[in-house]
Amino acid sequence: MTILEQTVAAIRPADPEALAEARAHQDRLTKPRGALGVLEEVAVRLAGAAAVSPPPLPAPAALAIFAADHGVHAQGVTPWPREVTVQMVGNFLAGGAVANAFAAQIGASVTVVDVGVAADLAPAPGLTISKVAYGTADLSLGPAMTAEQTVAALEAGIAVARQLVDQGARCLITGDMGIANTTASAALICAFTGQDAAAVTGRGTGVDDETLARKVEVVRRALRVNGLADGASEDGASDGSVAAGLRNASGEGRARSALEILAAVGGLEHAAIAGFVLGAAALGVPVILDGVIAGSAALAAAGLAPDVVDHCVAGHRSAEPGHAVALAHLGLRPLVELELRLGEGTGGLLAHPLVCAAVRVMHEVATFDSAGVTDKEA
Amino acid sequence: MTILEQTVAAIRPADPEALAEARAHQDRLTKPRGALGVLEEVAVRLAGAAAVSPPPLPAPAALAIFAADHGVHAQGVTPWPREVTVQMVGNFLAGGAVANAFAAQIGASVTVVDVGVAADLAPAPGLTISKVAYGTADLSLGPAMTAEQTVAALEAGIAVARQLVDQGARCLITGDMGIANTTASAALICAFTGQDAAAVTGRGTGVDDETLARKVEVVRRALRVNGLADGASEDGASDGSVAAGLRNASGEGRARSALEILAAVGGLEHAAIAGFVLGAAALGVPVILDGVIAGSAALAAAGLAPDVVDHCVAGHRSAEPGHAVALAHLGLRPLVELELRLGEGTGGLLAHPLVCAAVRVMHEVATFDSAGVTDKEA
Repeated sequence: MTILEQTVAAIRPADPEALAEARAHQDRLTKPRGALGVLEEVAVRLAGAAAVSPPPLPAPAALAIFAADHGVHAQGVTPWPREVTVQMVGNFLAGGAVANAFAAQIGASVTVVDVGVAADLAPAPGLTISKVAYGTADLSLGPAMTAEQTVAALEAGIAVARQLVDQGARCLITGDMGIANTTASAALICAFTGQDAAAVTGRGTGVDDETLARKVEVVRRALRVNGLADGASEDGASDGSVAAGLRNASGEGRARSALEILAAVGGLEHAAIAGFVLGAAALGVPVILDGVIAGSAALAAAGLAPDVVDHCVAGHRSAEPGHAVALAHLGLRPLVELELRLGEGTGGLLAHPLVCAAVRVMHEVATFDSAGVTDKEA
Repeated sequence: MTILEQTVAAIRPADPEALAEARAHQDRLTKPRGALGVLEEVAVRLAGAAAVSPPPLPAPAALAIFAADHGVHAQGVTPWPREVTVQMVGNFLAGGAVANAFAAQIGASVTVVDVGVAADLAPAPGLTISKVAYGTADLSLGPAMTAEQTVAALEAGIAVARQLVDQGARCLITGDMGIANTTASAALICAFTGQDAAAVTGRGTGVDDETLARKVEVVRRALRVNGLADGASEDGASDGSVAAGLRNASGEGRARSALEILAAVGGLEHAAIAGFVLGAAALGVPVILDGVIAGSAALAAAGLAPDVVDHCVAGHRSAEPGHAVALAHLGLRPLVELELRLGEGTGGLLAHPLVCAAVRVMHEVATFDSAGVTDKEA
């Protein structure tokens, strides 16, 4: 088996016994039933993923920022010059970006991974060079990546997950940097969910109305050119499942695999993040998804291994409309909703203390019996 | 001047120069303008409160849990026995409550303050005994507190704020424990905002439909008995301001002061939290408000010193409907929305890392110029 196949094969669904035990434990703790709202479900989810209740504390955390460029930049989908990708890689490595500040706040390590920056980067501490290509091809003219590139990027992500867990990380956080990557994200979300481009394409890090309209058209063209559009409007995308997304993607009358969709309209960082998520899940380490790039990559990961979702926590919901669509499709509820639209892993980093707090409760809070507190339900 | 008067007099509004400098600094940082969403405004807010940009990092944090009992418990507004207040104080002191776990997660100290528990508590490390009374009188039969008790509880809260800041805290977090205290909170919110009892009274830590209906009636009766109801339906509460709330509260044709409202339908912990918030603001230390108890107490604090709101951050929005009403009235947007309904300070504690992250950005993130990153706006 290839590394990708081994990884997919190693991913287990949530353990039903651990889930049940975690839920029962929540109800014994000195708080009203359900009083921790969404955080109770997060702790239960992590118990299921780890197949033990209470689950291990998801710390320390490690952030990996996967950086890559995009051929579709040539279509004028963003006001930011392509060079900003490599400039921001320098900023991450110098510790000057928002992701660095947020990582410092939670004691997370930061690893920058070049999977497809359109320039040669000098080796530097904190930089992993796993370059698959100097950016993708223009997804609006044909496939963004070859099958070989897609698998190489997936396996680069798997390798980073393995390395960070080897180094002691007990929670992985996805990050991204790639000027124009919300365009690829929108195309992926359309292809996997069957939604229309206009419903999922947003302003990214800030585009005007004219650019937004162009961006929607570019996404539409990408789906059409890559044979991912026809089915979406013909054979009932509306049930919203991954399976339907794959059916909808059957432009030539055959089901298109998640791998094919990823290659056609994804980015190298999307593929690497999908691999990173799969790699974490295969090792039983939870992963906090950042924003719309991670959400669209997670759709691809779920297409390859549906059980991977049981190992994911949605860190936040970004201002990008496609993100909510992706999260709903994955069945994930975001923890932080603060209208962030930055990427880099910032939303995932902010969510980490919430996830830790949720799990800490399972370890540290007294039960009604042990604390001698009267339970109204008893 | 009394300690309360000195404290109120010391509270300054947000400094306009610091606000402007903080906003300008946000726009120079290596991120798209506004990409940190709500967190940018939090950092700007703290700069205004501290009258310096960037503002100091709001750490370490200190949580104070103000505990008290409520005469209105006798009306059957909650399924929890009154003894749970003192039992939970024991749980906090033993480190076994959710607030302890969440405080450990962020390195915050926990101080429990007895301002009105209906039992004598033995001295213990972490416990401050500032008992004003053995619980309030039943607010549905007449004023919950005397004016003297209300001021004593306010000043107890001020004293705790001063002590924690003396000990090095640079961010204070409100916490509460008091079986039946969501009933007093609902009455306060009605009195200060002019909203109807049915719109702000919720299930607290979990009451059934019958108890909820009774609770709404108890709140209505409390407002009527204390002369806080008539105006609300007669002279236009709808503009929603604190001033309107006070006008609406003029049951006897005269404006009722925030102090009178607090005495009439508040709890001892509400008064102490109001004092704690005022005390923090007077010292220029930001305070993170927890849930509906803190929100209703902050309405009273704002009635006493409107500028206090500039020093507050809304930690979260609880599941209690009155909380959203209180926050809207105060003009505060909550950071965490996870359907918590526990109190204790849990929502405030969860928000602390988000507030720190927001401020850290102002200190640590590079500017476009310093990092050599191309700014699309430049």
